[in-house]
Amino acid sequence: MSEILVVGSLAYDSIQTPSGKADHALGGSANYFSLAASLLAPVRVVGVVGEDYAAKDIELLKSRKVDTAGMSVVKGKTFHWEGSYEGDMNQAITKKTELNVFEHFNPMLPEHYRDSKFVFLANISPDLQLKVLSQCHNPLFVGMDTMNFWISSKLADLKAVLKKVDVVLINEGEAMMLTGAANGIEAAKKVTDMGPKAIVVKRGEYGFSMYTKEQGFFILPAFPIDHVIDPTGAGDTFAGGFFGHLASLGRAPTVADLKAACIRGSILASFTIQDFSVNALAKVNLAALETRTGQYHKVISI
Amino acid sequence: MSEILVVGSLAYDSIQTPSGKADHALGGSANYFSLAASLLAPVRVVGVVGEDYAAKDIELLKSRKVDTAGMSVVKGKTFHWEGSYEGDMNQAITKKTELNVFEHFNPMLPEHYRDSKFVFLANISPDLQLKVLSQCHNPLFVGMDTMNFWISSKLADLKAVLKKVDVVLINEGEAMMLTGAANGIEAAKKVTDMGPKAIVVKRGEYGFSMYTKEQGFFILPAFPIDHVIDPTGAGDTFAGGFFGHLASLGRAPTVADLKAACIRGSILASFTIQDFSVNALAKVNLAALETRTGQYHKVISI
Repeated sequence: MSEILVVGSLAYDSIQTPSGKADHALGGSANYFSLAASLLAPVRVVGVVGEDYAAKDIELLKSRKVDTAGMSVVKGKTFHWEGSYEGDMNQAITKKTELNVFEHFNPMLPEHYRDSKFVFLANISPDLQLKVLSQCHNPLFVGMDTMNFWISSKLADLKAVLKKVDVVLINEGEAMMLTGAANGIEAAKKVTDMGPKAIVVKRGEYGFSMYTKEQGFFILPAFPIDHVIDPTGAGDTFAGGFFGHLASLGRAPTVADLKAACIRGSILASFTIQDFSVNALAKVNLAALETRTGQYHKVISI
Repeated sequence: MSEILVVGSLAYDSIQTPSGKADHALGGSANYFSLAASLLAPVRVVGVVGEDYAAKDIELLKSRKVDTAGMSVVKGKTFHWEGSYEGDMNQAITKKTELNVFEHFNPMLPEHYRDSKFVFLANISPDLQLKVLSQCHNPLFVGMDTMNFWISSKLADLKAVLKKVDVVLINEGEAMMLTGAANGIEAAKKVTDMGPKAIVVKRGEYGFSMYTKEQGFFILPAFPIDHVIDPTGAGDTFAGGFFGHLASLGRAPTVADLKAACIRGSILASFTIQDFSVNALAKVNLAALETRTGQYHKVISI
């Protein structure tokens, strides 16, 4: 069992979906990631929030034994994202992004974070991802996520991060944008030419495809959910389950480990989308995860 | 081993994709279906073509031992479809549909076709599907496809066909349109309330999901293809491989048979999209199918 360090956003989201809406609900990649990963391994979170951040939202992470020593509370308001899903539940439409305290975020790792063996650089500015990584002493396995905004505005920094990570977890559309590929299959192959040994392409309701230089493609569908309430955070939950599994093994991951990690991540993400914000994810326990994993194996069994 | 009867279009297609274009190339659901199914079981085709239909295109089916006694050549021009794919390779954009001889098609089955045990009603007008089915003596297993045009223009007839078939194979978008469901998972469940015991939702590059009342969902991805030339006919190829497998077994299909049939169909479809028209499919033999099936099992193996 090893520790996971995650850096990412801690946010309040205002979200509208065909099922309704949530106003200033808990969100942010680091929250989804930590809640998912902490079911399987110890998590250390790095992030920044404003004075408006509710104590209960810090307590939620602490109740999962997440180390919050790297969370700083600073003057100002917490990062706020406003978005909606219309028709295509795989694609969020951003209406507003208020960086607030995130704008001047300068991540400094507490001393005891620096020997974390598993490091996940969630979807934040690539120069911040580099700053965090440079403070880590010899991590065993590093992953990252990114998004269209950074691909178009900070490509050089992003390419520098790609050279330093073992795995990228990224949305299919963003993988295509990053590589100029016409589909997610071509994109996956091209991403591994940019540095990482492995890429996991997140396909939303269609599941994931992983490509490793060592063994090629590993592709499976998502667990079938007939009523999707809010897809926000599904990708970050996937990454959390993925890293949680790898850290629980505590060794340099084999391809077989990465495959099992994908399934953990995918199943956990299927809970997240069943309610707004982190509501469903916060209620998941290991027993529920195991039960759904059993059901999933039936869905994909020949 | 049983015979399969298929009724559908025999057509010339003019197609533009990001890879190029094909003008008046062989197409039509019955052609794709027959070429795929005939690799695995004997096929009897019902359809109509005009005087412009090339003898070599009939010979192509005959070279696969497809029974063409039910193909009629009538005065006029062959059905012509013109379409394109732009960006989203899962969705064809229809530019022109010239029904031509198809407009007055009145399918009459040759006597020896009527005892066919496996019947597939490809994507044609539901009243023609009913006409064909009414001429069959006690088929063992019946399947159908349909499309948005019939859902909006002939829903009552379509619902009557749905009550008489064992399985529907349908695109995800059309399954949603037919049922009013918000996603393909909800749609699949709702379709089985309309009659069929099983539905196969074709998800394009993401594979398929099958839902049976008996065992719930069976979902798998498509074989990964990094360079898609022309997706036309992939769904009909899937149906052909699906029925070819079932007819090769020659018994009332179990759910396990349907699962194996989905994989046959899905793998065959992955060949079709690698070239324009039926070019790639016409070259596939059993050895190539087996090789790719082996590769596919590696892609989905945990």
